[in-house]
Amino acid sequence: MSNSPVTLLGLGAMGKALATAFLTGGHPTTVWNRTPGKAEPLVALGATDAAGAAEAVAANELVVVCLLDYASVRDVLGPVAGALRGRTLVNLTNGTPAQAREMAEWVAAQGAAYLDGGIMAIPPGIGTEHAFLLYSGDQGAFDTHRPVLERLGRAHFLGRDAGLAPLFDIALLSGMSGMIAGALHALALVGTENVAATEFAPMLQGWITAMTIGIPLYAEQIDSGDYAHGVVSNVGMQAAAYVNLIRAAEDQGISPELIAPLKPLMDRRVAAGHAHEDLSGLVELLRK
Amino acid sequence: MSNSPVTLLGLGAMGKALATAFLTGGHPTTVWNRTPGKAEPLVALGATDAAGAAEAVAANELVVVCLLDYASVRDVLGPVAGALRGRTLVNLTNGTPAQAREMAEWVAAQGAAYLDGGIMAIPPGIGTEHAFLLYSGDQGAFDTHRPVLERLGRAHFLGRDAGLAPLFDIALLSGMSGMIAGALHALALVGTENVAATEFAPMLQGWITAMTIGIPLYAEQIDSGDYAHGVVSNVGMQAAAYVNLIRAAEDQGISPELIAPLKPLMDRRVAAGHAHEDLSGLVELLRK
Repeated sequence: MSNSPVTLLGLGAMGKALATAFLTGGHPTTVWNRTPGKAEPLVALGATDAAGAAEAVAANELVVVCLLDYASVRDVLGPVAGALRGRTLVNLTNGTPAQAREMAEWVAAQGAAYLDGGIMAIPPGIGTEHAFLLYSGDQGAFDTHRPVLERLGRAHFLGRDAGLAPLFDIALLSGMSGMIAGALHALALVGTENVAATEFAPMLQGWITAMTIGIPLYAEQIDSGDYAHGVVSNVGMQAAAYVNLIRAAEDQGISPELIAPLKPLMDRRVAAGHAHEDLSGLVELLRK
Repeated sequence: MSNSPVTLLGLGAMGKALATAFLTGGHPTTVWNRTPGKAEPLVALGATDAAGAAEAVAANELVVVCLLDYASVRDVLGPVAGALRGRTLVNLTNGTPAQAREMAEWVAAQGAAYLDGGIMAIPPGIGTEHAFLLYSGDQGAFDTHRPVLERLGRAHFLGRDAGLAPLFDIALLSGMSGMIAGALHALALVGTENVAATEFAPMLQGWITAMTIGIPLYAEQIDSGDYAHGVVSNVGMQAAAYVNLIRAAEDQGISPELIAPLKPLMDRRVAAGHAHEDLSGLVELLRK
């Protein structure tokens, strides 16, 4: 399997990184992009530049797609659907669980195996120890093609429901976004007193990293529904202290909009009699 | 200095932890609390329970205060202001930079040295390797009393401006709050597909920790004002991908309110022609 061939559709920044990882791993790689002229550096590395999507799909049993969105995937594959029969489609395009499940149905109807995937890396990380990718869908296809897929980064199979990879992908990116929002607010705040962001950053990075220790504790409380078990810092105290965080931002001329949304949720938990419980109970208010 | 005596005013959960660390470190400790009856377990450890705030302040040159808020500090110290002359007041009460500076002026007017402090730990962490405390204000007082203060956790002196300790404290807590908000959203999201939070938590913790690597890079961009230098992931792509994060939350029946505020800020940066720059440029929009 180590030199099994692969087709890649989509040569944006991420697609190019994927193709490069396949090629440097020794896999004969056929590439195609809607807009021509993107394949040249890859051809220099040994890639075959297909004349069209149909030719690219027909070239190999394993077809990896990395496009802008799911609509683009349907635009590209719709006209060549007949060529998919008997192949495996691995869709690394960003999307939602609902989109992945719809795509899985459509691909199954074409007689092909389907894996949805989420890439937890930026293009320069592809093929390095820092990259990991999430997959869900056809387990047999995953097992068969795992050696090729491992060229891109560590491969995690999450289950047969194609929606799981985008679900985990989006959950991880959402978690990261919260961390980034908090970090940007913090960096803006110290900047108001002429503290260099680079002076403060190591302390901030170390602190946020240390505080992620709360995540598995919150997870236990969420699974059990007992938000008062092993409380780290109760909502009543957190809500009181949060007033200072918002007031200090305003005093310093920094908009609190990135950190503000926790406050009304904490206040609602306190008002509903949960002041003695942990912050994890806020998940109850997020569920519609 | 290792056995120098100390007075502690305020015996809430944090105050008790502070007193315990002083006592187990071998420091003769005088304690006082507005509401009586809190000192008993500390007296069992060797503490002296003062009959009133004036007696407590008069007992030692070093007076540490940990109360609910700055108003409480003024309520307690106002009537005994005359007793402060020649002493050092270390105020570990939560507050804002403006409150700390106001307090520093008032304490100076009483002829006492002032240190403001921020406690980066929860009560069970006090006195362990996990705790660190931020101090700012009178550097001579910090240098003199550092051995006692180190009993509570690692002591960082930030500068002579008393407002710096609460500024850093609040910035760190704000950064942590963003991380927690993102993590709670992520845990709620996977829960909609019956994925156990405890199953997902280690991946989430590892991912957020790994992604903190962006913080020093953002800090460099913020200090230079060049948000296009060494771009990790540009705002244009992030804004496009963020649509999926919000749509997926809504599809899954999870309110996106905790992660939503980044979106309008990203859109404003894109609209203003900064699509090619990094997310760090959002700090410009936070400054009022």
